[in-house]
Amino acid sequence: MPKVTIATVADRAGVSRQTVSNVLNTPEVVREETRERVREAITALGYRVSQAARQMRTGRSRLIAVRIEPARDGINGSVLDRFLHGLTDAAAPAGYRVMLYTATDDDGEIATYEDLLTAYDLDAFVLTSTHHGDVRTSWLAERQVPFVTFGRPWGAPDTHSWVDVDNAAGTEAATRHLLGSGHRRIGFLGWPAGSGVGDARRDGWATALSSAGLPSAGLDRAVADGIDPGADAARDLLPSVDALVCASDSLALGALRAARELDHRCAVIGFDDTAVAQAVGLTSVSQPLTEAAARCIDLLAGVLDRSAETRQLLLQPSLVLRQTAP
Amino acid sequence: MPKVTIATVADRAGVSRQTVSNVLNTPEVVREETRERVREAITALGYRVSQAARQMRTGRSRLIAVRIEPARDGINGSVLDRFLHGLTDAAAPAGYRVMLYTATDDDGEIATYEDLLTAYDLDAFVLTSTHHGDVRTSWLAERQVPFVTFGRPWGAPDTHSWVDVDNAAGTEAATRHLLGSGHRRIGFLGWPAGSGVGDARRDGWATALSSAGLPSAGLDRAVADGIDPGADAARDLLPSVDALVCASDSLALGALRAARELDHRCAVIGFDDTAVAQAVGLTSVSQPLTEAAARCIDLLAGVLDRSAETRQLLLQPSLVLRQTAP
Repeated sequence: MPKVTIATVADRAGVSRQTVSNVLNTPEVVREETRERVREAITALGYRVSQAARQMRTGRSRLIAVRIEPARDGINGSVLDRFLHGLTDAAAPAGYRVMLYTATDDDGEIATYEDLLTAYDLDAFVLTSTHHGDVRTSWLAERQVPFVTFGRPWGAPDTHSWVDVDNAAGTEAATRHLLGSGHRRIGFLGWPAGSGVGDARRDGWATALSSAGLPSAGLDRAVADGIDPGADAARDLLPSVDALVCASDSLALGALRAARELDHRCAVIGFDDTAVAQAVGLTSVSQPLTEAAARCIDLLAGVLDRSAETRQLLLQPSLVLRQTAP
Repeated sequence: MPKVTIATVADRAGVSRQTVSNVLNTPEVVREETRERVREAITALGYRVSQAARQMRTGRSRLIAVRIEPARDGINGSVLDRFLHGLTDAAAPAGYRVMLYTATDDDGEIATYEDLLTAYDLDAFVLTSTHHGDVRTSWLAERQVPFVTFGRPWGAPDTHSWVDVDNAAGTEAATRHLLGSGHRRIGFLGWPAGSGVGDARRDGWATALSSAGLPSAGLDRAVADGIDPGADAARDLLPSVDALVCASDSLALGALRAARELDHRCAVIGFDDTAVAQAVGLTSVSQPLTEAAARCIDLLAGVLDRSAETRQLLLQPSLVLRQTAP
């Protein structure tokens, strides 16, 4: 027997699927006559869908949307892929399914929200890559669309629920580890100022040096992310340092290459503990991505129950020791 | 900014409005070259299909489901992540959204199909990791649920539409490249017999050696995937070979490590051109994953239009040359 779906019901009642969905979810917006016709079709076809039933009961679709990032250099991009794996794993037992979308910038993403909210009964969004001047959260908040973010609202008040990893604590631990191994001239390779995550990673390094009574001035470089920019910046810094903390594994790989070329002994620590770090023996700061994803799903429950207070969770990273800074 | 319509897209692509509509709804009836031109215009103009409008017209949800794999060693697992990025990118302009699910084996995946088909109005599934004795495809076929697979039906008849990459051609090209560089004792590191993909990768190596009149007997090892098993197997083989073709970048990394430890000069070629290959300078066979994902979306249109014949597409991999086998 063919499966009875909303489409079958819509066909029989001679209405659109949206109308059937409206009858199930917001019957007050449907004319009474149409409503009756749809309900007759539902009864005649024996349309009984657990999801639809739940949707009628709870007004929820159990569908959440998350952006999938364009594949960048394949090293750092893997971080959000791991978050996505964790999110899908955590969503299923909680009864949620994850829908993907792509967008190249905030405006494009907001346009996609409109499209998704028109076309699908989404329960909520999980936003990643929050940043200064992020217009996505206020857009969603104004329209009362439920969401949580992986990443804090940089420079904006804490008005929504979020999960983040303490980036500064990660580079501070990395720098302390190098200090503990006897290094005293510890440099930092990071990104241009202005990115919340990047600035926090630089701050952690500077804080650790300052606590140890060591200067940090002149010992950092800000470049675009990638192996080549990392190698260039490291070549410039290496004469002055014997250890480097890096804002990413890509930059750290560049630093390792420069140190090898210059035959300059230099401890190197990356950030994100990617597969590449594992493959080349790079010490790296590891974000608890599976944990972060699971906590996002936890917080969603509170967000969907609008009476709950917003909650913010800052998770601690850990340092994975390998040959480049044992 | 003026609103972008089908007419605007048609003007820019130099085709009729009907052709644009065909590309959006029944792309299989449009010549590939025209299809590409229209898609370029769609992307350039930022044309967004109104999902709600189309759903009313076609009775389809435009929601497709794909499994997201558990994150394995983070090296080889990234291949399916890249496929997923490609799928989401290709799905959006065609008006589809991608929904994720997880499963640990075929039976678990089939249980998930039942859940998804009951709970959501899915249009189709895209299956990955096809294998011998795959019970998923027959389950879906019996229930007339539309699907395409990335991966051919190993050992089963071609009764559904699929896209695959010619694995044997990849290792054959890798082996020929090594032969062309003067290597004559070329070994192979692969997986235990029985996996369609693994056997095909071994076959390509053996075929190239046989065509060159060289023996392959005793020059291959079958081990579990991973850096450590690759290093162990390579240690065993290295005395007899001066080059190694590997079924994965993980195995190739292990081979590189063993060669370094034994101080044995050995060219190494991996498979999948992962970020790790890029980072360590490993020559590797590259699968056209973005292309494969786009073709899956193309084939879906034919599958959803049940009158269309099933189609099978075998794509060619390419060899990315780096330091380990220049």
